[in-house]
Amino acid sequence: MGLTIGVDIGGTKIAAGVVDEEGAILNTFTVPTPATAEAIVDAIASAVEGAREGHEIEAVGIGAAGYVDDKRATVLFAPNIDWRHEPLKDKVEQRVGLPVVVENDANAAAWGEYRFGAGKGHDDVICITLGTGLGGGIIIGNKLRRGRFGVAAEFGHIRVVPDGLLCGCGSQGCWEQYASGRALVRYARQRAAATPENAVLLLSLGDGTTEGIQGKHVSEAARQGDPVAVDSFRELARWAGAGLADLASLFDPSAFIVGGGVSDEGELVLDPIRKSFRRWLIGGAWRPHAQVLAAQLGGKAGLVGAADLARQG
Amino acid sequence: MGLTIGVDIGGTKIAAGVVDEEGAILNTFTVPTPATAEAIVDAIASAVEGAREGHEIEAVGIGAAGYVDDKRATVLFAPNIDWRHEPLKDKVEQRVGLPVVVENDANAAAWGEYRFGAGKGHDDVICITLGTGLGGGIIIGNKLRRGRFGVAAEFGHIRVVPDGLLCGCGSQGCWEQYASGRALVRYARQRAAATPENAVLLLSLGDGTTEGIQGKHVSEAARQGDPVAVDSFRELARWAGAGLADLASLFDPSAFIVGGGVSDEGELVLDPIRKSFRRWLIGGAWRPHAQVLAAQLGGKAGLVGAADLARQG
Amino acid sequence: MGLTIGVDIGGTKIAAGVVDEEGAILNTFTVPTPATAEAIVDAIASAVEGAREGHEIEAVGIGAAGYVDDKRATVLFAPNIDWRHEPLKDKVEQRVGLPVVVENDANAAAWGEYRFGAGKGHDDVICITLGTGLGGGIIIGNKLRRGRFGVAAEFGHIRVVPDGLLCGCGSQGCWEQYASGRALVRYARQRAAATPENAVLLLSLGDGTTEGIQGKHVSEAARQGDPVAVDSFRELARWAGAGLADLASLFDPSAFIVGGGVSDEGELVLDPIRKSFRRWLIGGAWRPHAQVLAAQLGGKAGLVGAADLARQG
Amino acid sequence: MGLTIGVDIGGTKIAAGVVDEEGAILNTFTVPTPATAEAIVDAIASAVEGAREGHEIEAVGIGAAGYVDDKRATVLFAPNIDWRHEPLKDKVEQRVGLPVVVENDANAAAWGEYRFGAGKGHDDVICITLGTGLGGGIIIGNKLRRGRFGVAAEFGHIRVVPDGLLCGCGSQGCWEQYASGRALVRYARQRAAATPENAVLLLSLGDGTTEGIQGKHVSEAARQGDPVAVDSFRELARWAGAGLADLASLFDPSAFIVGGGVSDEGELVLDPIRKSFRRWLIGGAWRPHAQVLAAQLGGKAGLVGAADLARQG
Repeated sequence: MGLTIGVDIGGTKIAAGVVDEEGAILNTFTVPTPATAEAIVDAIASAVEGAREGHEIEAVGIGAAGYVDDKRATVLFAPNIDWRHEPLKDKVEQRVGLPVVVENDANAAAWGEYRFGAGKGHDDVICITLGTGLGGGIIIGNKLRRGRFGVAAEFGHIRVVPDGLLCGCGSQGCWEQYASGRALVRYARQRAAATPENAVLLLSLGDGTTEGIQGKHVSEAARQGDPVAVDSFRELARWAGAGLADLASLFDPSAFIVGGGVSDEGELVLDPIRKSFRRWLIGGAWRPHAQVLAAQLGGKAGLVGAADLARQG
Repeated sequence: MGLTIGVDIGGTKIAAGVVDEEGAILNTFTVPTPATAEAIVDAIASAVEGAREGHEIEAVGIGAAGYVDDKRATVLFAPNIDWRHEPLKDKVEQRVGLPVVVENDANAAAWGEYRFGAGKGHDDVICITLGTGLGGGIIIGNKLRRGRFGVAAEFGHIRVVPDGLLCGCGSQGCWEQYASGRALVRYARQRAAATPENAVLLLSLGDGTTEGIQGKHVSEAARQGDPVAVDSFRELARWAGAGLADLASLFDPSAFIVGGGVSDEGELVLDPIRKSFRRWLIGGAWRPHAQVLAAQLGGKAGLVGAADLARQG
Repeated sequence: MGLTIGVDIGGTKIAAGVVDEEGAILNTFTVPTPATAEAIVDAIASAVEGAREGHEIEAVGIGAAGYVDDKRATVLFAPNIDWRHEPLKDKVEQRVGLPVVVENDANAAAWGEYRFGAGKGHDDVICITLGTGLGGGIIIGNKLRRGRFGVAAEFGHIRVVPDGLLCGCGSQGCWEQYASGRALVRYARQRAAATPENAVLLLSLGDGTTEGIQGKHVSEAARQGDPVAVDSFRELARWAGAGLADLASLFDPSAFIVGGGVSDEGELVLDPIRKSFRRWLIGGAWRPHAQVLAAQLGGKAGLVGAADLARQG
Repeated sequence: MGLTIGVDIGGTKIAAGVVDEEGAILNTFTVPTPATAEAIVDAIASAVEGAREGHEIEAVGIGAAGYVDDKRATVLFAPNIDWRHEPLKDKVEQRVGLPVVVENDANAAAWGEYRFGAGKGHDDVICITLGTGLGGGIIIGNKLRRGRFGVAAEFGHIRVVPDGLLCGCGSQGCWEQYASGRALVRYARQRAAATPENAVLLLSLGDGTTEGIQGKHVSEAARQGDPVAVDSFRELARWAGAGLADLASLFDPSAFIVGGGVSDEGELVLDPIRKSFRRWLIGGAWRPHAQVLAAQLGGKAGLVGAADLARQG
């Protein structure tokens, strides 16, 4: 099979990209993300049409946040869009006249990294995506594992603290409340409020208030050694690494891939995650250790992965 | 392939059984478990020879507690026997002259239930074994998933309470400290010490002291409605169900199978586990729910599963 | 000394009451709570003048939510009113021409219960107030203990869950997130969402949605045996009782008094609190146990207590 | 009143010391600690007689681990000696013919520090003793506060982690499991096991195994910058400081005094405790902060404090 299109539905824009068999993106087309569920279908179709121009396309893969059913056709539930049992595959196929595969966006990103990024050469890989929240994907035996009903790999919502922080999902103590971009900002704000003298640089990057601290400020300040910012990354890494140790007990992969916006900081965050992983790995002296690798495709992993999943059919 | 032998290495005895293609046990032979690693190899060979008598056997499967490598040949580490990188497959093959497969005992039990017990007809099943500790096995896509290095499905050692109870593995807050036979006894003893007036029956079943409370007493007392015993099962079920909810987020199986000695109590423990599972399942309104089933093979699951894994080769 | 006035500053109204030496309220006057800090001083003065009419008053006691300094003159910080280092004593004295004492509202309520309510006859009493949040007061050796700087007894903000629920105070895992009216509603909503079939009555009392569940619905439903409502009270009691056990380890009082709106439900909440207290009390077999008593003055404890503290000078 | 004798009952020896009104020790006499409860009374009497020689003594104060009743006469329960409702005051008075006061040892040490050590000049002081376990004492309004029944200030057993580490007291998650000399050693052993390459020095100080690590090794290694040892002190300080923040919310003292063997390391442990205290102090921007001071009397605080309490009568 030749070229396919991957679609990434983000909070502000929808990107469609033509992807070849090597994972290279030949063309992209972007439209703003509309507010309503119906308009989003239109927007997806527009993006696909825009990207398609001049290319022979065989199928379309769409990465969407939310639960996608086992037929990869229906979005059962989406956290940010008003989709409830939305037959996205059918709707988009009618518009674009191509076979469509719908996949959870974190699954798509995991597949992208497995095929063309940090996961190449591994048969069993677990990906985690540290973005605003925490998502992930499972590759076992060279296959994306979606569970019986299609909704596996919801890493962000395993409970790591009983009676812990309230999560948007309605539960408490979910991993993504402790290891995600949002958690990073919370760590920084709390620490800056308690000990502002250790956050002078961090506070200066925003508007001077703790509430004004943004994720980009924490990254920038950490690179420059701001104590509160560095400690905030370390706290995030403590939780990320401990969670990976749990995943190692469960899945025993040969590699973990850490992606998402937070991972853009590279070793600033990877190195403490590795240390924490090792600290908490059970039976570490008696078992081979999985590698903890940085993702390589950045924000394009989802689009490329979705396109490739469409190619696989 | 015809008949194979499964071997179950327990704390007090080693059982070998001839198993046919339908999972039926045709003959068993049992020897006491010796103290040293070397003597255990002898004992395994004796048990196999004893069971083999009069049967045409094609292979042997051994279920052993501990980490078993990806070649299913070497026990990397065993918690109760002094095995460290023990080449068990080679040693037993030399003694019995048959192909040998070594498998983690909880994996073997999971496979047994999947093939011939509660898991029949499911493609994706997660088994947990609530024995003295907590073990488990993963079947995805009709295959036992052992991880890249062979040591997946160590369910008992995922961290459910940060800074929690000390575990024999050296870590803290491991699931098996909260959901296992040992945990059940601890719950009962602590509650009986705090409110002995609610444990009159429970205490009467043992020697009258809280330290004298054993697992069988808790089961017996719970069946008769002793408040402390009932509450102890409920506490175990709270943790077991919450953990299953996490596993659903990760694996999304169509069924969970709950086995091990604790599960012998049937609905007394299954019913509250189901309730807790439902209480903690993330996104429960938007996703199909896995069934939570009682294991059907009892203590024979491991032997039958090991034999069948040997048959599969 | 004869009559004094107690002032209770609530979220919607400010009540002033003339109180005699026996704790009886002879007259009350109520005004709405204005929005700004300055207008509140006017409103307090109006309420005092209204209540004073026809009585010979010797002093005024004001109960205010927030940190009150060791001179009982300045509100250092108030959570709901824009008071920061507010010299409330001076401002009100200038308006009403009477000596004024300012006290933390939970301290005032504790004192009221100690003097005229459930605490009569005890020398060492700890009061907790389960209202929207959780407050309290400490009486040791027949004196209200305010700490060196005036801000003791902030019970609601001791950490009972590391990395726990976010609190309005900026910290995490504070006791009041687990034992308060707000916590009760959260418990009920979460449980009703997970198992609506167990909350049929509870849901019917509101608008049918989980978000529509209010505290009064939980109380009403619990009285009628709704499973989710009863379980929600039990969960609150688990945390309340465990916290009292900690306070017993620290203060070893002869009695705990439980007040606040949640305690209006009487034994529905007191009984499980006592059980949980006993469950978690350390060394319970070797030490006398404090009583856990229901408050007797209801919503008037703060007003009466503030008036009496003003009398004591 | 003139001279009194203080008695300190340790695990290996019983020390009696003649103490003057300024807290100076004029003479000491030491005997080994016998094994039985009855023999310990004899040993106390011998130590008192030995120390008394040539001094006019007016009273004896005994510091004992355990619950001491409100009359300061009876040890209700002792963790390390077989005392259950032991009338220690009467027994020792009969032997030595002097008035005797019995006090909990941590209370006595707190009183010693308050009167002659780091607490001089403070009216409201909380002492914590980081020894093998964690004890403490409460001084409010210049009086030792023992609670209604005599058993207040059992700081070590407040619950800081729900479902946390098992404690010798039978409960779980007690503070002393996270902030004490025993906890320090556990932290070091766990970290050394997970990352031995960061504990080269630490391991070299003992017998080379993680189990061989002792408290003194952790101190020595931390002073020399061993990463695991330094991190272990930091972990202890995290818990100690967070607990002090809770105690500040409850008691609002003007000073905390940190004593016990762990505190012998001075700023190595005090500095991170102060940082953690500040990190977790609620409302820190709006309230005066208590000082966190190192104890000054070392191992003599209990003896001196007991003697002084006997003088006070």
